[in-house]
Parts: sequence; C-alpha cells; structure tokens
Amino acid sequence: MKRDYAKEILAGSPQAVARLISWLEDEDERAYSIMEELYPHTGRAYVIGITGSPGAGKSTLTDKLIRIMRKGGLTVGVVAVDPSSPFTGGALLGDRIRMSDHSTDPEVYIRSMATRGFLGGMAKATCDVVKVLDAFGKDIIIIETVGVGQDEVDIVGLADTTCVVLVPGLGDVIQSMKAGVMEIADVYVVNKADRDGADQLNMEVNARIEQDIHIKMSGWVPPVNKTIAVDNVGMQDLWESILKHRAFLEESGRLVEKRRKQTYQETLRMIHNELFRLIRDQLSEDGRLDRLVEEILERKRDPYSTMREILSEWLDSTPKYKEAL
Amino acid sequence: MKRDYAKEILAGSPQAVARLISWLEDEDERAYSIMEELYPHTGRAYVIGITGSPGAGKSTLTDKLIRIMRKGGLTVGVVAVDPSSPFTGGALLGDRIRMSDHSTDPEVYIRSMATRGFLGGMAKATCDVVKVLDAFGKDIIIIETVGVGQDEVDIVGLADTTCVVLVPGLGDVIQSMKAGVMEIADVYVVNKADRDGADQLNMEVNARIEQDIHIKMSGWVPPVNKTIAVDNVGMQDLWESILKHRAFLEESGRLVEKRRKQTYQETLRMIHNELFRLIRDQLSEDGRLDRLVEEILERKRDPYSTMREILSEWLDSTPKYKEAL
Repeated sequence: MKRDYAKEILAGSPQAVARLISWLEDEDERAYSIMEELYPHTGRAYVIGITGSPGAGKSTLTDKLIRIMRKGGLTVGVVAVDPSSPFTGGALLGDRIRMSDHSTDPEVYIRSMATRGFLGGMAKATCDVVKVLDAFGKDIIIIETVGVGQDEVDIVGLADTTCVVLVPGLGDVIQSMKAGVMEIADVYVVNKADRDGADQLNMEVNARIEQDIHIKMSGWVPPVNKTIAVDNVGMQDLWESILKHRAFLEESGRLVEKRRKQTYQETLRMIHNELFRLIRDQLSEDGRLDRLVEEILERKRDPYSTMREILSEWLDSTPKYKEAL
Repeated sequence: MKRDYAKEILAGSPQAVARLISWLEDEDERAYSIMEELYPHTGRAYVIGITGSPGAGKSTLTDKLIRIMRKGGLTVGVVAVDPSSPFTGGALLGDRIRMSDHSTDPEVYIRSMATRGFLGGMAKATCDVVKVLDAFGKDIIIIETVGVGQDEVDIVGLADTTCVVLVPGLGDVIQSMKAGVMEIADVYVVNKADRDGADQLNMEVNARIEQDIHIKMSGWVPPVNKTIAVDNVGMQDLWESILKHRAFLEESGRLVEKRRKQTYQETLRMIHNELFRLIRDQLSEDGRLDRLVEEILERKRDPYSTMREILSEWLDSTPKYKEAL
C-alpha cells in the first residue's frame, strides 16, 4: 500500500517530515504532490528570520529564544541555512552540544540545509521547508541564515519578522547596513554586548535608523536590543520586541500585505526554477547547446544574438511572446 | 550622429566603458548590440577571482596585487561585487583613500557593482562587465566578492584562477571549507598571517586539502600562501602561485575546458534570464499573477499546481517542451 505522507505529517510524524524534506532537497518529483496536499494547512505559523555575520552568535540566540518560546508553550521549527551554523554541522563541537538541549524535545524540530543548487535554489528549498513545518503544526518557525548575498536576502524575505544580529568589533556594521540590511531589519540585536564598543555600535545603529527616511514613513522603527545570548542576558526583551513587531504587522494589516508579496515572489521563483530545468534539459539533450558553445568560443558567433536566436525558435509558435524580444 | 560606443571602447575610452556598464546594470536595451560588437574582441584577458569573508582583507590584497601587476607592465580591470568592499563604498574612509593609489593610473579601471536584482542577476551583470573590460584591453581582470552564498559562488565561477582568502581568528575556516569553497579554490591565502592562530589555520587548510580525493585527482594541489597584505608581505609569492596556476591551466588544456564550461553556463543563464523576464512581464502586465496570488493566499489553490498550470499554458503550442513538465 502506498504511504500517505501528507496525512502522516498532518498527524505529527517527524519521520514523514524528514523524508519529505529530503525529497525536496533532491528535487524528487514525489515531493510536489505531497506539497500540494499540505498547502491548505499552511499559513498558521509565525516565521522569524535571524541573520548576521558568521560569528555573531546567531545559533546561541536561537537556542535561548527557543527556551523562551517553549516556556510559553509554543512549538518550534528551525531551518538553518547558514553554512556557519552548528545546525549545519559547520561550527565547533561545543556549539553542537549546546544546541542538543532541544534535541530530545519532540516539540522542537531542527533541520539544517546545505548551501547548494543554482540560482535561488536555496531560497526555494527553504520556502518549501517552512511550509512543511507550518503544516506539521509548529507555532513558530525560525530561519537562521548568514546575512550576506542575494540568496540570503531572498531567504530572509520569507520571514514575518527579521532580526539582524550585530556584534561589536566585527567591523561590519556600516557595510552590512549599506548592503540592503536596513531594508530587511525589523529588529536589531547587538549581541555580545559586554564587549568593548557595544555602546558605540548601539549609537551608530540608532543614528542610522533615525536618518532613514523610509523607516520614518513605514510606521515601524526597528528597536535595537542589547543581548549577551551566551549568558541569557536581554533575551526576554528581544522576544518582546519580536512580539511587538508581530502585533504591529497584524494590527496594521501589514502581515497580510507581506504574505501577499511573499507568495507573489515565491510563485515567480517557482516558475523561474522550473523554466530553467526545462530549458537546460532540452538544450543539453540534443547536444545543440554544445555545438553553439563551440562556435561562441571560436568567436564565430556571440552569446547575445545566440540567446535571442534560441529563444526566438523556442517561441516560434507563440508569436505574442516573440514580439517582446 | 549616433555614437559608436563599441569603437570608442576598443579605442580605449573609459567614458564609453562607464556608459556601457551603466546600461548593463540598468538592463538597458542599448547595451546588447554593443556587447555583440565587442564579443569578438574578448577572451584575451586573464580573470582572477578574490573571495573571502568580510574583513578578510580582500581589498588590501587586491591593491597590492595590482601594484605587482602594474610593475610587470600589465593593465588591470577590477570588478568589485563585494557589498563590504571599499570599492563599493561600503567600508571605512581609510580604505577608500588607500585604494585611490590607483585612481590616477589610466591603466587600472575599477568598477564597483551594487548587490541588486532578482535571482542571479548579479552573476549575469558581472559576467558582462568582465567582457567589457576584456574588450577594453585589460590584461588582467580581478573579480572581488564575498565568499558566501550561491550568487557569489556563481560569480567566482567566472574566474580562471580563484583565490580564497582566510584569516586566523575569524573562526570561519571549517565552515567555509564545507560550504563549497574547496571546490572553487585554486589558491588559498592565509592573510593577516602575523595574527595568533595563523600556523594552526595553515595546518588545518593543508590537512583538508590532503584529505580531499577530488583535489588529488585533479592534478592541481592548491598552494596555501601566507600574507600580511597591509605590510606587503608574501604578495610576490602569492602572485607567483597565481601564475603557476595559470601555467597549469594553459599547459594541461584545462583553460580551454574551463572557458567552455563558463560559456555554456553563461549562455544558459542568459536564455533563462530572458525567458523569465518575458514570462514575468506578461504575467504582471495583465494582472493575472495578482489574481492567482489572491487565490493562493485564500488557499483556494496551491502554488505548485499553479506554477505548472502557468508554464503549461505558456508552452501550449510547443508540445515537445510540455511533455517534460
């Protein structure tokens, strides 16, 4: 008899969840019919993004946040897409041992994802896993990722509330705040706040927030929370900042707006990925692209007009799209 | 009279180069006919990738490498796609002043690119800019980028020789070596080698290289160079490592192979980007995607079958592609 994975997941089977996520990672066809079945059961979880440079202490913060959530009776899913995270096996053994606090708690499901794939594959996979954990019944889903690069910005875009973690002395504040971070931060965390330079960093971040005209107009001024996660200092305040942001999103109608935008992006991304698979498979199958590449390498043709030629053939029988070329 | 930008660029006009790159960044149609004209004049430059975490000292290394190249009579182009790079205006003023050593040298052309765009747009733009600087006549083109995230890995894939810069104490070695870095590194740099832990780091990296079966089979064992870029220590050795790798690629026939692969990826990426643009524009124009997203949000439909429906309609008159769905 065929196993009904969707049913098993909705009934709370972590084994079925693990299997489905593996299929999603492998882009196994079997995953998608299950995802279709699960989809109506999604949209209930609240998604928190935690991002920052390697070494900022994101996993310790996540760990302490999970404790607070568990005390409040909330169930938690974690998707770690940070190559530097202990969840992904990237960091020191000590970190991994520390995280294992939650490994025996059935209400906490932790899944790490290896960086992989081509062009936004990571964002797509993360988006799918968030949905699985949502349907699985987790109240809160935490996405942990490194805050550099477009792929990571796309991943953070999946969160309802994004926490940007900064650390004194890493020297990355100004740069990271220029690199699009200000657009994504709902809550700032100055972690390792007992280090030299914490007050200075705090001031700098606040000054930048004050200068930002978009923030002023948005109705939400990101709070800056000082924490020493390793000593459990400031964690309750951080959690309250997150809850305040959630309340703001819900009361202002922004949550609905945000999720509309996310769904729009997600659908486009899915089309994007699938289209790429189609083109790649078809062009490589008949060896045609190999021949064209040879001619391009010999400078007998250029890649730009070649691209238009291939597309034009592709669209030969759909003239309305061809016009746009 | 219409200006002939291709001719101006081939004749050495930096103004024409700047204009073309701006058009490429804006995805301005005018760029592509110029790119077609320039393409036959490309393929001469040698492309060096420099990647590593923020704070690894990539721009100082680049600066010192440029000096060596210039002493050897080589002309240089730099494409900085690192959001934390002083080239992109992200870092401290001191760094920017230091870099301006080369700003009066007409044989050094530096261009920064802001992180932007959706799904791989950065890799495409960088690829185009490398071609422009190649046609412009630069002997060496340096791509500087942060070594985290898939987009960055794709960017580094444009280089002939990739240098991965590590720093003692950043605690990012093991993790970065897991995150696909070992596959892309042709030359390792342990920068800030006067810091505590430099020898340890050196040993760790060498141990990992020795363990790697793929490296053993490849015929090229990445050298590990210790540098203190800020004091100009170890730079000549690093440059010689790069030259050795270049000689290896050329003599073994790997350079041809590598560029074939790059051209293949590039052509595929261009076709994909263009096709995606067509679909996206069409879907957003008639408001159809907005309506579908509404239904997805209401859980009346799911994004997975919606994606297949959209693509299937698109391909309606090209049944052979439809079969692959």
